[in-house]
Amino acid sequence: MIRSLPPKVSAAQFERALAAWRSIVGEPQVVSSADALAAYLDPFAPGEREAFSASAALMPGSVDEIRAILRIANQFRIPLWTVSTGRNFAYGGAAPRLTGSVVLDLHRMNRILEVNETMGYALVEPGVSYFDLYAYLREKGYRLWVDPPAAGWGSVVGNTLERGFGYTDYGDHAAAQCGMEVVLANGDVLRTGMGGIEIGTAWQLYQPGYGPSFDAMFMQSNYGIVTKLGIWLMPAPPAYLLGEIQFRHEADLETIVEILRPLRLDETIRNHAVIEGGLRRAAGLSARAQWYDGPGAMPESAVAAMLDKLDVGRWNLHFALYGTPELIDARYALVQRAFARVPQARLSARRYAGDAQPTAGGDRNLAGIPAMTAFRMLDWRGGAGAHVDFAPVCPATGRDALRQYTMVKTRAAEYGFDYYGGFTAGARHLHHIFAAIFDRDDANQVEQAGALVRSLISDARAAGYGEYRTHLAYMDFAAAQYSFNDGALLRLSETIKDALDPNGILAPGKQGIWPAAWRDRRGYT
Amino acid sequence: MIRSLPPKVSAAQFERALAAWRSIVGEPQVVSSADALAAYLDPFAPGEREAFSASAALMPGSVDEIRAILRIANQFRIPLWTVSTGRNFAYGGAAPRLTGSVVLDLHRMNRILEVNETMGYALVEPGVSYFDLYAYLREKGYRLWVDPPAAGWGSVVGNTLERGFGYTDYGDHAAAQCGMEVVLANGDVLRTGMGGIEIGTAWQLYQPGYGPSFDAMFMQSNYGIVTKLGIWLMPAPPAYLLGEIQFRHEADLETIVEILRPLRLDETIRNHAVIEGGLRRAAGLSARAQWYDGPGAMPESAVAAMLDKLDVGRWNLHFALYGTPELIDARYALVQRAFARVPQARLSARRYAGDAQPTAGGDRNLAGIPAMTAFRMLDWRGGAGAHVDFAPVCPATGRDALRQYTMVKTRAAEYGFDYYGGFTAGARHLHHIFAAIFDRDDANQVEQAGALVRSLISDARAAGYGEYRTHLAYMDFAAAQYSFNDGALLRLSETIKDALDPNGILAPGKQGIWPAAWRDRRGYT
Repeated sequence: MIRSLPPKVSAAQFERALAAWRSIVGEPQVVSSADALAAYLDPFAPGEREAFSASAALMPGSVDEIRAILRIANQFRIPLWTVSTGRNFAYGGAAPRLTGSVVLDLHRMNRILEVNETMGYALVEPGVSYFDLYAYLREKGYRLWVDPPAAGWGSVVGNTLERGFGYTDYGDHAAAQCGMEVVLANGDVLRTGMGGIEIGTAWQLYQPGYGPSFDAMFMQSNYGIVTKLGIWLMPAPPAYLLGEIQFRHEADLETIVEILRPLRLDETIRNHAVIEGGLRRAAGLSARAQWYDGPGAMPESAVAAMLDKLDVGRWNLHFALYGTPELIDARYALVQRAFARVPQARLSARRYAGDAQPTAGGDRNLAGIPAMTAFRMLDWRGGAGAHVDFAPVCPATGRDALRQYTMVKTRAAEYGFDYYGGFTAGARHLHHIFAAIFDRDDANQVEQAGALVRSLISDARAAGYGEYRTHLAYMDFAAAQYSFNDGALLRLSETIKDALDPNGILAPGKQGIWPAAWRDRRGYT
Repeated sequence: MIRSLPPKVSAAQFERALAAWRSIVGEPQVVSSADALAAYLDPFAPGEREAFSASAALMPGSVDEIRAILRIANQFRIPLWTVSTGRNFAYGGAAPRLTGSVVLDLHRMNRILEVNETMGYALVEPGVSYFDLYAYLREKGYRLWVDPPAAGWGSVVGNTLERGFGYTDYGDHAAAQCGMEVVLANGDVLRTGMGGIEIGTAWQLYQPGYGPSFDAMFMQSNYGIVTKLGIWLMPAPPAYLLGEIQFRHEADLETIVEILRPLRLDETIRNHAVIEGGLRRAAGLSARAQWYDGPGAMPESAVAAMLDKLDVGRWNLHFALYGTPELIDARYALVQRAFARVPQARLSARRYAGDAQPTAGGDRNLAGIPAMTAFRMLDWRGGAGAHVDFAPVCPATGRDALRQYTMVKTRAAEYGFDYYGGFTAGARHLHHIFAAIFDRDDANQVEQAGALVRSLISDARAAGYGEYRTHLAYMDFAAAQYSFNDGALLRLSETIKDALDPNGILAPGKQGIWPAAWRDRRGYT
């Protein structure tokens, strides 16, 4: 790999900047060798890995060091790309959108600054993973749960800022966020919401504060560097029930969504229930080669045989009920009654005491325990497993879900990919997540995976759907779909960007937002 | 009253601007006579009513008219003050922060653009009141509830943008908002969140969209004119229970909050339960003069006698449980058990079928029916009743609640005011609302009410508390309390303000945010 430079910066200038940064964070905290920088490439790149590569990485240990780093970046106009722990796999990992950017790697800032058991929150730095926070809560004996995302090694701050989601009643991570500390491009440090009251205690208790609320503006954006973040934690329930309903027919998806939505709306089911496709469920139990070894997507007959053999549904609804045993019983009765009308649906459930732990990884997530079982998907197809995700927002109607599913499955098959996906249920929307799984050592698969996601974004837009999150490679393309009034929303985003970051040093191109200095780099390739 | 001019604008220039506006909206939709403009003065001003007065008012009927109005405002640099219906009583009504601003009165834009019963939302224009929306839902037979604020005549858009709150499970109005259309100062029209997908149907279903989310930034601010707003509506429940618990002792407040918080956190109680002070409860049943006619605040003995006679608690907790009868029973049992430990607490409850309507106004609010009974408070003290509110955010702990209560009650008594207030319960915070009730024809009372609120803001800050919302007169003062890092949050607010509104034409001074052109008008008086 050839060591890259930041764009528009000479080698000599860059050396001066690196020297200045070394004096700020210390020699060992500046990564500048090509070998070491390989760690910041996207391990799951749906294309050339070097298309998004860093020129250096900095690992500050404090807010003051970040502020000093920003001064140098402003001086030399060198773009920075902030990551918390860099685990944003399938969306780019730790790699920057603009090649040559310097990664600002915050994993060393990993303090759990506060946990308040009475009020149910934590205040954490970017380097704190879900595993870390979970271990800390258990160690201290706090009766609080985390809501883990699919991969427990991810950063709480990073996942929340990208609007990740989990499995429990606190599954909407952005909605459970309360209070931030942010460093702006000019080095100014602010605290959102009630954080402005210096001796106050409500920073993690009331989200908006007084006047405009900016927290949601610092998510999926490049307006500042979030150095502290408050997150609400669910009080450990006295008991819980984990339920699974297996559905036999592909077309059941429509009915499932129509039954589930009212149960989510009336809060009978309050967790982020997941409607998991059969193939994804099967991937936790077996490898693809057991069932099919030919070219292209698995044929229907192979899928059907696999599901039969593994005793897995075509769709599998996972839900959880937390609370007192009496309330769980009453709510479970409503769930049973509601789904009883689906032919051949098979419901199973298991009750747990509040401190009991399920053994299976997926169930552990529903019990607030971080896991890495989702990564089993990497073994599904064999070879050097990787995936890139297509993640459209789906209205919570059976018609929309079936339409998105059919659209994705059909297009995926054209490109030689299985439908590996599912729907996670908010109250009024579903997060539809489809993963194109590929062998990263197979150049053709890599290329096809990338091309497929691009096609899907177009398909979705034509049908009236937009993405909630994308890989680096599609950030501009996805943003362009939000085209009301000739892209007025993006115009607003970039007006604010230029006001807050006139030199364009913070994460140019993130989610399609380019500062004036780099606006010519926007591109859909 | 003397007709005022916009600041820094000559009479001749103003006439030209008015002429241009008349040609846009039509002669009858421009209010410029001193008599007619009196309607835009603050009816509850805690000081001189003319301190916040408009030079004209414009009543556009469409987004296009608003855009044309903005062109003229930019040309002449005339500040506009947007109101939806102007019912922001106790916080300024329809009056502008900067005297001489032109009120942009959107009450004529009053279409209910969409109601979706299946998905549970409405899309409305600023002129739609809670009464309007409620009537529409009933007329069409939609099985959806509104969540009314204290005064049902208020605008859905206006109340939501000011982060008002109500009584049901959807009591946090800002949290139930989904999707906006906004006109920026430069006339650009954007749609937030999924509204960027033009043929999409998820605008009112998924809040954040792709990239930064701006909705919360357009609340309590002056960054744009919101012309459409999506609001989630609660599905009509099959049944509900309205409960009241009367508590005998002042110090019970601490215990109430400590018992209520876990019930809110574990969602046994999901509505915005209200801990109403005895005096406020009594005001719904009687007039002050029946109990006390002397100078200053009501003495303790008179309060005690009144509460005894009226059979009202010193604190009165109002809560609601919505759902199936079985779930209501199970949750009610938990509530009963939890509060059983408070000596002399008296619990009463009434069950309703889903379509049954309570008769008392306060109970009607809890059943999703807008009312105006809160205005009974205006008769409490006699004369021309008015009030100004002190509204600090309170951490949901017994200690904080009792501390705020004691602080406010003591200071209020010094200024000759009764403690007329209560606490509305979020999960981790309480909205503490204290109303200084005064006779607006009594100059001394008016002055004392204003001085009291100013003192309370100082008291609160010294104790670590900040306001969630304030009257025009205290917007700068309240903003100044959020002083972390020398007011970094307000610096961010004003940086964005200048980027979006370089001529400073939109609501200068709102929530303490001043555009560059008018920054010298900031003042704490």
